[in-house]
Amino acid sequence: MVIILKPNADEGQLQHLIQWLKEQNIDPRPCVGEHQTILGLVGDTSQIDISSLLALDIVEDVKRVSEPFKNANRKFHPTDSVINAGGVPIGGGHFQVIAGPCSVESEEQIVTVARQVKAAGATILRGGAFKPRTSPYAFQGLQAEGIRLLLLAKQETGLPIISEIMDAAHIPLFEEVDILQIGARNMQNFELLKQVGALNKPVLLKRGPAATLQELLMSAEYIMAGGNSQVILCERGIRTFETTTRYTLDLSAVPVLKSLSHLPVVIDPSHGTGSASLVPSMALAATAAGADGLIIEVHNNPAKALCDGPQSLTPARFATLMRKVAAVRAAVCEEGAEPPEKPKEGDVCIRCT
Amino acid sequence: MVIILKPNADEGQLQHLIQWLKEQNIDPRPCVGEHQTILGLVGDTSQIDISSLLALDIVEDVKRVSEPFKNANRKFHPTDSVINAGGVPIGGGHFQVIAGPCSVESEEQIVTVARQVKAAGATILRGGAFKPRTSPYAFQGLQAEGIRLLLLAKQETGLPIISEIMDAAHIPLFEEVDILQIGARNMQNFELLKQVGALNKPVLLKRGPAATLQELLMSAEYIMAGGNSQVILCERGIRTFETTTRYTLDLSAVPVLKSLSHLPVVIDPSHGTGSASLVPSMALAATAAGADGLIIEVHNNPAKALCDGPQSLTPARFATLMRKVAAVRAAVCEEGAEPPEKPKEGDVCIRCT
Amino acid sequence: MVIILKPNADEGQLQHLIQWLKEQNIDPRPCVGEHQTILGLVGDTSQIDISSLLALDIVEDVKRVSEPFKNANRKFHPTDSVINAGGVPIGGGHFQVIAGPCSVESEEQIVTVARQVKAAGATILRGGAFKPRTSPYAFQGLQAEGIRLLLLAKQETGLPIISEIMDAAHIPLFEEVDILQIGARNMQNFELLKQVGALNKPVLLKRGPAATLQELLMSAEYIMAGGNSQVILCERGIRTFETTTRYTLDLSAVPVLKSLSHLPVVIDPSHGTGSASLVPSMALAATAAGADGLIIEVHNNPAKALCDGPQSLTPARFATLMRKVAAVRAAVCEEGAEPPEKPKEGDVCIRCT
Amino acid sequence: MVIILKPNADEGQLQHLIQWLKEQNIDPRPCVGEHQTILGLVGDTSQIDISSLLALDIVEDVKRVSEPFKNANRKFHPTDSVINAGGVPIGGGHFQVIAGPCSVESEEQIVTVARQVKAAGATILRGGAFKPRTSPYAFQGLQAEGIRLLLLAKQETGLPIISEIMDAAHIPLFEEVDILQIGARNMQNFELLKQVGALNKPVLLKRGPAATLQELLMSAEYIMAGGNSQVILCERGIRTFETTTRYTLDLSAVPVLKSLSHLPVVIDPSHGTGSASLVPSMALAATAAGADGLIIEVHNNPAKALCDGPQSLTPARFATLMRKVAAVRAAVCEEGAEPPEKPKEGDVCIRCT
Repeated sequence: MVIILKPNADEGQLQHLIQWLKEQNIDPRPCVGEHQTILGLVGDTSQIDISSLLALDIVEDVKRVSEPFKNANRKFHPTDSVINAGGVPIGGGHFQVIAGPCSVESEEQIVTVARQVKAAGATILRGGAFKPRTSPYAFQGLQAEGIRLLLLAKQETGLPIISEIMDAAHIPLFEEVDILQIGARNMQNFELLKQVGALNKPVLLKRGPAATLQELLMSAEYIMAGGNSQVILCERGIRTFETTTRYTLDLSAVPVLKSLSHLPVVIDPSHGTGSASLVPSMALAATAAGADGLIIEVHNNPAKALCDGPQSLTPARFATLMRKVAAVRAAVCEEGAEPPEKPKEGDVCIRCT
Repeated sequence: MVIILKPNADEGQLQHLIQWLKEQNIDPRPCVGEHQTILGLVGDTSQIDISSLLALDIVEDVKRVSEPFKNANRKFHPTDSVINAGGVPIGGGHFQVIAGPCSVESEEQIVTVARQVKAAGATILRGGAFKPRTSPYAFQGLQAEGIRLLLLAKQETGLPIISEIMDAAHIPLFEEVDILQIGARNMQNFELLKQVGALNKPVLLKRGPAATLQELLMSAEYIMAGGNSQVILCERGIRTFETTTRYTLDLSAVPVLKSLSHLPVVIDPSHGTGSASLVPSMALAATAAGADGLIIEVHNNPAKALCDGPQSLTPARFATLMRKVAAVRAAVCEEGAEPPEKPKEGDVCIRCT
Repeated sequence: MVIILKPNADEGQLQHLIQWLKEQNIDPRPCVGEHQTILGLVGDTSQIDISSLLALDIVEDVKRVSEPFKNANRKFHPTDSVINAGGVPIGGGHFQVIAGPCSVESEEQIVTVARQVKAAGATILRGGAFKPRTSPYAFQGLQAEGIRLLLLAKQETGLPIISEIMDAAHIPLFEEVDILQIGARNMQNFELLKQVGALNKPVLLKRGPAATLQELLMSAEYIMAGGNSQVILCERGIRTFETTTRYTLDLSAVPVLKSLSHLPVVIDPSHGTGSASLVPSMALAATAAGADGLIIEVHNNPAKALCDGPQSLTPARFATLMRKVAAVRAAVCEEGAEPPEKPKEGDVCIRCT
Repeated sequence: MVIILKPNADEGQLQHLIQWLKEQNIDPRPCVGEHQTILGLVGDTSQIDISSLLALDIVEDVKRVSEPFKNANRKFHPTDSVINAGGVPIGGGHFQVIAGPCSVESEEQIVTVARQVKAAGATILRGGAFKPRTSPYAFQGLQAEGIRLLLLAKQETGLPIISEIMDAAHIPLFEEVDILQIGARNMQNFELLKQVGALNKPVLLKRGPAATLQELLMSAEYIMAGGNSQVILCERGIRTFETTTRYTLDLSAVPVLKSLSHLPVVIDPSHGTGSASLVPSMALAATAAGADGLIIEVHNNPAKALCDGPQSLTPARFATLMRKVAAVRAAVCEEGAEPPEKPKEGDVCIRCT
């Protein structure tokens, strides 16, 4: 951590700050420039609150030089984490495709789609039971009944299942669900993060549409700090000024996250674009970029889907896509089992902290 | 609502769509152009799901021409709502300043600050008991004890109080709190919105940093649809590419929201800028823009604050600011009780839906 | 085009508007709803100025239902354009890699790099002679001498060359340059666009960091309206709130642009990420997404580069990348010469106009 | 400047870097931490190229601790600059309102509007002769004839005039124009900046819609580095995800720019919002925030304006607004000539460099 002092900082206050830092076992090393003095802090600065330093009259700015997350940090865990998702491994060279409808609508629908996506090569089934909808007047999901139908589809096909949890009070309902999904809008619902952090179950954590990659990793840190290290990161589009797509899918998240962290990274091209016609090219791009998996919406009748129809693939288009995904995956892994050229530790750094 | 058909849309499918719309009591009026045909829908389209229409093969785009929110809409409630906040009215010409520390830290701190902000003219006391923090290692608030201390300060000063609620499970703790605050990160925590919608208590709803103004109004609609119409809207900065400020305070939210809705609008210049030195000018600007109130962080010792110190004013600076706020308020209301020139209904419209 | 009238629009003014529209050979068809009346305009609305309509007292909003660009529009030119770039075809199934240093620095440097990128498979040489730099104190390029050295490298290697033009007054200097590059910061330098529109020479037009895809196409339209239809579109990253990357590379631009327009689309992963370690994965992703080409910075000694060193690949890393790019290209084109699943006309539409 | 080294940086390369820095008269002071080593650089680092440092294998990141602009920097010029704009002073306590139509359309129009805005209290006349338009099919301005008509209006009213210059080749046409305007889209047209930097004439420089405040100041630096220090900064809205307004007006630019720089700051609420109904509240807000002036579009018949009609005020609404602007200005300057509480030097700092 580096403290930049204001020009003409009061000497008495400076000595006071230096004294206080030493009491925290931090060694502040001053570099005195003509116009600016900085203090380089040596020691464990993770418990130092940047806000308190910034509030001091003599401080102009404070910059972190190391990341504020630990459990999720590749520096302290250099090898890729492999998460066991209901028997299916993700990460560390294991690539998986999660597919299924936005919402569970009926037994027939979810079982049919489950069989179709399994036949096409998907290895995990998705399906929403609790749906976050912008409008209170929109379909909110089948809720407990949706979970029951998902479990039925799991029994029929053997696919492990993932579903979104919106409230910690619902945890008991998700006991047999293999992977909990934390939606983008709940990425900083810290109460929910703490409670799933106390479970022993994989969590797919979606990036909020206005969250930086560092904030995503800090939210992963919330879960991991509670003892649950089975976190899968998911990029699903960020909010920008562009309006032809629903969100802007930030595929550079793949190499950046894999450089900063050891956790697996999954891409959601369905929500990331909002349009079925864009899903295939973005799914292939994500695969080529080195993602550890994809999560794709598939519906047997998109025009009748109770939500997110426009971004759902038909089973037939999904099957075609899966063949190309396999070809691209083979192309980028051609020279051995290695995923595409991965940034080395330290190649990417969190700026602006 | 307007449906734009693809060029060369299949006639059979088109007849099918028209039939279905009629069954929903919607009258679809076709306008056939050389390159493009559109259907203008006449009738109550609020229950029509845009997603389902967009998923149809023959549909290129769908545009709403009226807002998807009803309870919050000025069109159906032309006069300003006045919210009774623990005895203090907000909205409809009633301007209030909410002030206090980011976090409640001790009895002495909260009571001292409460007395100071009251003396300077604040009429509602703020103080955080449950704190949403990006890092799991940062101070998380005094929680239940914080609420107890806030109530003490209320008793000492007579000021009504506001505090942030992060989880519906905490509702019983907030029974005597006058105004519930829904934080920016929870603006789309729909479970929480539904549960506070069932209460009879004012709610200050903060705009999420990536939320459009329409989405803010849709979240207000969640609360109001549950029967609780005591909603106060709050702009606190949106996320942009600019990095000298913590967020970009969007003051045009004041006239836009007041044109679209009858609900009061409060501005938070402390979180909106992240820097105490910017709070006075933005507080004055918000007042001049016609806001119904301000929410400002004040701490008796910002450098020792357990959170958000850099953006807290000292009581002395706050008192100076309050005098100028009063002068600006008087200047913009000079010609009678009218707030500054307000857009008329229909002057502003929600684009892009 | 659809005009949405304000509630209770004055009947006299409405008749006036309808009369005026008819005089423009537009047939306005009213759809009268309970709360809202809209006019669907049938006829050629391209010459109607939206601003003038919006300024009318009785108009709430105006929405376009067809794109405001014509020459660049796939609707009026369904087959892919193939641009002849100094003998090398781009677009319509022809994939090309443009490579070279950010700046031309010396004869030895540009000739050496040109040979190396040619050996690795690049087919067009890039090199900056005029450099747009944020700071007036930074290296501004070798200018005319830089162009001379580029032409030398072209002579030595036979590679066609591309270089950025910053001012129309420099056009004579670029006479023998095969492709003119319009930089991101000049995407809306309309005087420059008009003047290159009068030339008979390919133009690679970069998207501005705050430009929508529609605005990029409107700038292409400026060039094409002047008679020069040899435009290559280039995505090079947009400005967002994320700070770990220099820009956010918007790869969904590939399928969106290819759906809306017949022009070739090239991706610049070097500027789009700002970091050499991220270039390989984003170059592979762009290839998988169906781009018609890549433009990549390569420098024989990135640490000594006079600009943009951190984002330049070494020739060795570039050669490794080229092998993987070829493999991915083969994977996505496996079933014949077809590029990856392309959105059909009308699948994507410009919203919000 | 602070260099953050990668963990396990090669010792030989490190010594090489230290040696090179010393040759540049920079004293690199190492602070060795457990996980991270940083070098604090003492000396004049303004000529050090951050890119070259970032490209080194052993460097993880480089952070500036002082601003890269000098002429525009308040640190080296503590008192406010006062710019003489055709006889009218702006800055340093002098507040001016610039008003007039978006485009000059005819002699009658510009002279009529000039008289009306003068009568209402405007002190500088604006009018566009060369118009940057997104579409090549839109009205492009009267060009040379427009300048001639503006000069006529100046003669009639005595008001100094401002007009936008889009190409350095047009400079001779602007000889009698009092203030040159550089539009938002040309903020980084560096060739144009250099050429107006060689003139002796005030320049109003608009912030680009995707430009940070630091980049705006770097563009001011381009002009000042050429010897022309008569620069007026102008905020006119930045591009964000919000769509109810055309841009998001960033009023915190006022205190931030005035803290970082000594140059005057003017706000453009017309382009910043895109809607006449929002102009009054934003003009009042800008005044309260401490701006040195406003630039407002006024048209005698907005519905017939050849461009930007929807954001133009009528002369009557402008006159009403001017009375309130005067009242707010008086309110914020009540205690003497001081503008509203101004951040002190060092209160705001450029982060993320």
